[in-house]
Amino acid sequence: MVTMRDVAERANVSIATVSFVLNGTKRVAPETRTRIEAAIEELGYRRNVVARALASSRTRILALLHPDLEARPNATVIQFVMSAAHGARERGYDLVLWPVNGDEQMSHLLAGGLVDGALLMEVQIHDPRVDRLIASRLPFALIGRTEDEDLPFVDIDFVTTIDQALAHLRSYGHRRVALVTQRTKAPSGHEPGRIMRVESAYRDAMAALGEPPAVITVAGTSAGGREAARALAEDAPEATAVILVNEGASAGLVKGSRELGRSVPGDLSVISASTTAELGEMIEPSLTVMAAPAPQLGRLGVNALIDQLEGVQDALPHILIPCTLVPGQSVGPARPS
Amino acid sequence: MVTMRDVAERANVSIATVSFVLNGTKRVAPETRTRIEAAIEELGYRRNVVARALASSRTRILALLHPDLEARPNATVIQFVMSAAHGARERGYDLVLWPVNGDEQMSHLLAGGLVDGALLMEVQIHDPRVDRLIASRLPFALIGRTEDEDLPFVDIDFVTTIDQALAHLRSYGHRRVALVTQRTKAPSGHEPGRIMRVESAYRDAMAALGEPPAVITVAGTSAGGREAARALAEDAPEATAVILVNEGASAGLVKGSRELGRSVPGDLSVISASTTAELGEMIEPSLTVMAAPAPQLGRLGVNALIDQLEGVQDALPHILIPCTLVPGQSVGPARPS
Repeated sequence: MVTMRDVAERANVSIATVSFVLNGTKRVAPETRTRIEAAIEELGYRRNVVARALASSRTRILALLHPDLEARPNATVIQFVMSAAHGARERGYDLVLWPVNGDEQMSHLLAGGLVDGALLMEVQIHDPRVDRLIASRLPFALIGRTEDEDLPFVDIDFVTTIDQALAHLRSYGHRRVALVTQRTKAPSGHEPGRIMRVESAYRDAMAALGEPPAVITVAGTSAGGREAARALAEDAPEATAVILVNEGASAGLVKGSRELGRSVPGDLSVISASTTAELGEMIEPSLTVMAAPAPQLGRLGVNALIDQLEGVQDALPHILIPCTLVPGQSVGPARPS
Repeated sequence: MVTMRDVAERANVSIATVSFVLNGTKRVAPETRTRIEAAIEELGYRRNVVARALASSRTRILALLHPDLEARPNATVIQFVMSAAHGARERGYDLVLWPVNGDEQMSHLLAGGLVDGALLMEVQIHDPRVDRLIASRLPFALIGRTEDEDLPFVDIDFVTTIDQALAHLRSYGHRRVALVTQRTKAPSGHEPGRIMRVESAYRDAMAALGEPPAVITVAGTSAGGREAARALAEDAPEATAVILVNEGASAGLVKGSRELGRSVPGDLSVISASTTAELGEMIEPSLTVMAAPAPQLGRLGVNALIDQLEGVQDALPHILIPCTLVPGQSVGPARPS
């Protein structure tokens, strides 16, 4: 039976260095890595992670419970997924993609014994997945929040994000600012928590400014964006600017406004929040965006979960990070009313 | 020790139905599923997939080796990832996201014993990952192709895709058609195979038509797209149309052309190939695209791997599917020369 020590001796390195290469947990100089890999192949060393998992009752596998991204993947959600995968690998864990449509795949997860813990995305206000995780005592962390803010979570700070977007628009003279959010097919109470939080942050901020709110809810598609352009022109004609928290509708809103003879930013200034700067750049004119902190939050979420598993103290974080303003060409001076 | 039979008896269903719920391999009526889940919880049934894996020396876990998607996720690549994850789950396998940057994470994969097989994306012409997989005898399938076309693969049929794009442009009177492909940082021979295949399909097709080729290679970014617009105007001014196989540069090419006083499609018709219709719709004017068969290929790739693992005959497929034309507003009649 070849051991890790045999590999270390043959390659003339420490056992720790062999472990770094095998687990991918730390960068090892290319020449050293090549030597260790040669020793592994010569000696025919093969670790049995399955036997190790049985001995330790730990698999070092985490599940990422994500919504159905197959139909219409969204640039920001993907950044969450990829940064979580990288973050897991850096700490020596593997991340399994776990497509959950409603309650479908939860039994397999909970009765399977495959994973040490779960990371949830697109968290709903009342999330049945969370109830089942709590009942099963499987450790978990959330990217997003339920109504119960005592659970461990990392999330976008929508209050600060909306406040900063409004402050930016007000510096250009805009007072009447509408909000466009996303309509989902989820039954009431099961919408992603962010939709409720964005709307309530917006209403609070407008009330504090003494301005009347105008909220438009459309599907996250090009057609939804065009619908929002029409609703803005007809139902909120006094709005000179709009904050959009609906990535999929952003291009359609700009195109739809133009088709109605309203130019961006001449007649309507637009900020697209919780999206990526790359996506904003694709649109004409380039959108001013509030870029989502997705790369950070994916890593922080997976770290929050691993900290729980490894018994790190204070491993139940409540982390909020706002989006970052990236100016484009879609915000201009408010038109005179 | 509670068994699956106990659960089946308590829920008054067959053992197979319990298995469908636990593995998520087949849709079970919601009431039946609820009854089975209640029985699992009441009896405290817990399968030990780790013990089962040790007994069978199979883990039913597959690795998806993907490039670094963290920095600039690409709409089409994500469709591959998500459809592969769904396809695996439908056959009772789990898919681990395995970020591979160069040769970094291969040792962990090959010496780990965690996975039954690997699915590779962004396959290079000479792909060192493939060499190591062959040496280690870990079953694998490719989404894309190396030079060795005997390996099991699924891929986009670039010959048919380019031919159909050219036929569409020629029906509008275009004869001089340029190609814009993607520059990568990979050393020569390690570029993604698709880049070489696209260029060679284009050169062959233009030669067959008796027209001179013009190939422009730029980064997959907005800046790259603008660079392509300038190169088209300066180095290939006779081209009245362009086929773009560079998703990230598509918006920049259209914006850059407009900035140079060349309208799309008035002065330049554009087809963006191997991308998504949703992305084409975001741009102004909406791009005519050749939509990548990513949802199909992700599933076919994972099925090719699982078929090998399960000893299905003829499990070494060579599947090619062309992109599908989705007309937008970026192709018009050729301007008179």
